[in-house]
Amino acid sequence: MLNCGTTTTALISVIRYCTRCGAGVSFIVPAGDSLPRHVCPACGHIHYENPRLVVGCVAEYDGCILLCRRAIEPRLGFWTLPAGFMENGETTADAARRETWEEAGARIIVDAPFAMISIAHINQVHLFYRGHLATEEYSAGEESLEVALFRPESIPWPEISFHSVGVCLERYLADRARGEYRFHESELPPLPCP
Amino acid sequence: MLNCGTTTTALISVIRYCTRCGAGVSFIVPAGDSLPRHVCPACGHIHYENPRLVVGCVAEYDGCILLCRRAIEPRLGFWTLPAGFMENGETTADAARRETWEEAGARIIVDAPFAMISIAHINQVHLFYRGHLATEEYSAGEESLEVALFRPESIPWPEISFHSVGVCLERYLADRARGEYRFHESELPPLPCP
Repeated sequence: MLNCGTTTTALISVIRYCTRCGAGVSFIVPAGDSLPRHVCPACGHIHYENPRLVVGCVAEYDGCILLCRRAIEPRLGFWTLPAGFMENGETTADAARRETWEEAGARIIVDAPFAMISIAHINQVHLFYRGHLATEEYSAGEESLEVALFRPESIPWPEISFHSVGVCLERYLADRARGEYRFHESELPPLPCP
Repeated sequence: MLNCGTTTTALISVIRYCTRCGAGVSFIVPAGDSLPRHVCPACGHIHYENPRLVVGCVAEYDGCILLCRRAIEPRLGFWTLPAGFMENGETTADAARRETWEEAGARIIVDAPFAMISIAHINQVHLFYRGHLATEEYSAGEESLEVALFRPESIPWPEISFHSVGVCLERYLADRARGEYRFHESELPPLPCP
């Protein structure tokens, strides 16, 4: 999961050749459109590029929150909520369950969508569910160095991986303290990379 | 906005050539991955494909709801909420405002996210805001035959364009009648095309 502009490849669109016929593409505004796209002059195929959904979960067990310490860049060694790019053929809830399984080895029950965070400068929307572990079983997946359950007062704030994860956790704990969960929407501006 | 499997091109992934170097690609599981991707054997570029966000709005003016009659396929001639594919560089709320402007010629204030509908079989997530028009100004954009404000009892249900639009409108009117809006999540299974 990425939200640091200088370390993500999400912004670096390199479409030079047509995916359908292999001809060199032009970057032009197609007829009837208002934005430039990579258009193939040979076969006419238009290569649309759209924002990607990153989906994750704030998952609780016995009052503690499941976090993963990243084994990959960006932000290797920092703590994050399990989350990642949604795949074709799945629902948003499927994606939250899959990512939590892959990164944290935990089977979760998703309770409800919790936070949606637009990060326009990297063409991403981060969507976090809230959920819970059915049992206290978890283990580090390939993208995690370790996985642990944190009491709210023990969350390692200075070692949190990404701005969106911090925003989500803050709102989650505020809602939890108030005893009522809402759905939160926000937008993140570009930040200098840590 | 599409949710009919046989008329959408969203499912028809035709990646035959590498966008970076033009070589023919292979459909294989990359090292460290769990799903097959279109991978370039020449330069190594992996062509990820992910679900797209379709964003729109239930916009009210004076108790009526803004609908557009589609000027394009699929579902030409049917009534829809203003909505369309989110573009790179914008937030979800930006997308709702832009689509309502482009399709309905209306400037809206978005109030809150209202419904999120996963349609896994066409690799889409439909997100609808609720909002309102600041003034009674609207006009058909290029993708609309006409635009109109409908009282709830006048909504042309048999002529509603897409399943997701119908689901969203039903939930909106139910919440409105109850006097309290919630955020709704749902999933739509494949449907036979009308």
